[in-house]
Amino acid sequence: MPVISHRGAQMPPSPIRKLVPFAEAAKKRGTKVYHLNIGQPDIETPKAILDAVRHVDMKVLEYSHSAGFESYRKKLVAYYGRNNVNINHNQIIVTTGGSEAILFAIMGCMDPGDEIIIPEPFYANYNGFATSAGVKVVPIPSTIDEGFALPPIEAFEKAVTTRTKAIMICNPNNPTGYLYSREELEVLKEICLKHDLFLFSDEAYREFCYDGKKHISALSLEGLEEHAILMDTISKRYSACGGRIGAFVTKNQQVLDAAMKFAQARLSPPSFAQILGEAAVDLPADYFDEVHAEYNKRRDLLVKRLQAMPGVKCPMPGGAFYAIAQLPVDDSEKFCQWLLEDFSHNGATVMMAPAAGFYATPGKGRNEVRLAYVLNTDDINGAMDCLEAALKAYNN
Amino acid sequence: MPVISHRGAQMPPSPIRKLVPFAEAAKKRGTKVYHLNIGQPDIETPKAILDAVRHVDMKVLEYSHSAGFESYRKKLVAYYGRNNVNINHNQIIVTTGGSEAILFAIMGCMDPGDEIIIPEPFYANYNGFATSAGVKVVPIPSTIDEGFALPPIEAFEKAVTTRTKAIMICNPNNPTGYLYSREELEVLKEICLKHDLFLFSDEAYREFCYDGKKHISALSLEGLEEHAILMDTISKRYSACGGRIGAFVTKNQQVLDAAMKFAQARLSPPSFAQILGEAAVDLPADYFDEVHAEYNKRRDLLVKRLQAMPGVKCPMPGGAFYAIAQLPVDDSEKFCQWLLEDFSHNGATVMMAPAAGFYATPGKGRNEVRLAYVLNTDDINGAMDCLEAALKAYNN
Repeated sequence: MPVISHRGAQMPPSPIRKLVPFAEAAKKRGTKVYHLNIGQPDIETPKAILDAVRHVDMKVLEYSHSAGFESYRKKLVAYYGRNNVNINHNQIIVTTGGSEAILFAIMGCMDPGDEIIIPEPFYANYNGFATSAGVKVVPIPSTIDEGFALPPIEAFEKAVTTRTKAIMICNPNNPTGYLYSREELEVLKEICLKHDLFLFSDEAYREFCYDGKKHISALSLEGLEEHAILMDTISKRYSACGGRIGAFVTKNQQVLDAAMKFAQARLSPPSFAQILGEAAVDLPADYFDEVHAEYNKRRDLLVKRLQAMPGVKCPMPGGAFYAIAQLPVDDSEKFCQWLLEDFSHNGATVMMAPAAGFYATPGKGRNEVRLAYVLNTDDINGAMDCLEAALKAYNN
Repeated sequence: MPVISHRGAQMPPSPIRKLVPFAEAAKKRGTKVYHLNIGQPDIETPKAILDAVRHVDMKVLEYSHSAGFESYRKKLVAYYGRNNVNINHNQIIVTTGGSEAILFAIMGCMDPGDEIIIPEPFYANYNGFATSAGVKVVPIPSTIDEGFALPPIEAFEKAVTTRTKAIMICNPNNPTGYLYSREELEVLKEICLKHDLFLFSDEAYREFCYDGKKHISALSLEGLEEHAILMDTISKRYSACGGRIGAFVTKNQQVLDAAMKFAQARLSPPSFAQILGEAAVDLPADYFDEVHAEYNKRRDLLVKRLQAMPGVKCPMPGGAFYAIAQLPVDDSEKFCQWLLEDFSHNGATVMMAPAAGFYATPGKGRNEVRLAYVLNTDDINGAMDCLEAALKAYNN
């Protein structure tokens, strides 16, 4: 029998799917499961953009341009312009989800054996894409005690080697919810310029900033034009995860040329979802206000409830729709599994993502969980009632 | 300025896009361009499957299962069963186009430095995916004089090294149109079993077989269950290239497990096009008859016209919708460019793909072109009138 590849064997399993069989078993037993484990929003996809697909007028479902519809990219120029990112439509490659933008960045800029520095905890799939590309992830710690702020510049300096090619951030951050300040981005700029590193900036949650704070894009930093690569997606912004439309944006022409060859190899991004994405750019300017207010309310409630539980620590996240909480348990994976296997409260239980899967350093995050506040406030209250009761029961 | 990766620099440019600027210039001058250069069919996408998307009833455009809708995979089991491929729905991963199935096969089975044997000429993007994966393509020649039949087993034996992990075929073949016989597939089976190699079989054109011949899937070969990986797409079958839906199918559990981790890293295939693909499986059994008859007519006409031109050699293709022709010119790339830049006949010209881009061996295919018969018979006649007149003019 022929054997699979080392990279296939080494690909990390998804940390949020490990517990799925236990959740399915719980549901079969009739237990309601509150899903705070995955970033799948319950917010309705705007009807206007679904309608754009419903009213599609075409005879032949053709390949699109490998960089995506030119009409869509031109509209995206205006969208990014409103977010202080000044580019032209040839600096955008429409991708199959943000996932493919990450793949293009790693493949286009890095070779096997190269190193990428990522503050941990981080979005677990970065590890998957790095593994498939033979790239080594070098984690540097951000900690719950510092509210998951950017690690100090000394930590980056210590991590840089001759093989370092890039730093990757997610801003606002999945899984921590941390929103980087201008000062922090200036630190990243300084280190990238000093060591000539790419800055890969995943800005999937750009609009999800709270407390009146503004998002600052890596592509808006003066002097970083040749270093910054923006990886984007419409999945969260428009509750359109199944569309699989994202964007790869950079002003570095060499990188664009390389990424275009990867884009041409896979022919084109999906057409229907491009139609949806293009319609989304035309949504009224106030579309996101209501969504924003809803997530703000959910965040406030979730964190207030968590902070009120004895032994629980949860820094207030400034963005995205995630929070990491430290729980008074030894092993959050065991606890999360127990919640699904052996616990219910008023006929319900809660599913969370054990945080260890978001750390590259073994042993870290073992008493932490990631919670996605993608449910309405009633359900968040229900989930927090479960967690509160569970922690009492578990520790007895 | 940070530098791009070696693999980014080495990615081959698309051979069918090189001439695009010349075609655009010709159109600007008012010249009609017959596009025989790219496999984008003019056949209408079945209205029933476009309607399935138009009538979509959803509130939230959610991520699907990473392996694709279970309902769709279950229908695909029946589809493959009708084609003598007996599998269950857990042996199918729905992919983002056939492209992603190719990527999963190479990534899941091969490491950097590993070798894959491919009869040349071959679909040029195999080279792109191999390059991005650090895999070395080892071409073995199929020739126009043999009608592009499978190279003899000795050629495979000579090409096998300790790093060989797989053989890749496209059946029926893009770019040659060659349909492999059972005897040829048995040769492939023998060599795969002897050296424990994977057989990657791209069967995008399964239904496009002429002269009463039947397609034989690599996955239907007895004894090759652990070696065969089927890479598929709905793009050509249903004229749905822009949907970006394909499939990765194998009975090898280790390979499936590895591929699933790659699939989970990119979250899910596009949902709208899965709806379209699922509706396609429900099309009436005779849907393809008319399409098949149309392509058969086009093939017969194209090849008859080509064979009637002095100095042109074109073996009759048994499948797909491509033909390779040898022309009485020194350099088909120069000739194709000349056709677009300096030639017109009755206000029109023809665009073809220089075949050198489908060969890995430098210098091969220099006097050959690939023609995709994706236009109606009137347009094929128009295109052939142009080519006939052009060859006369070019050689004077």
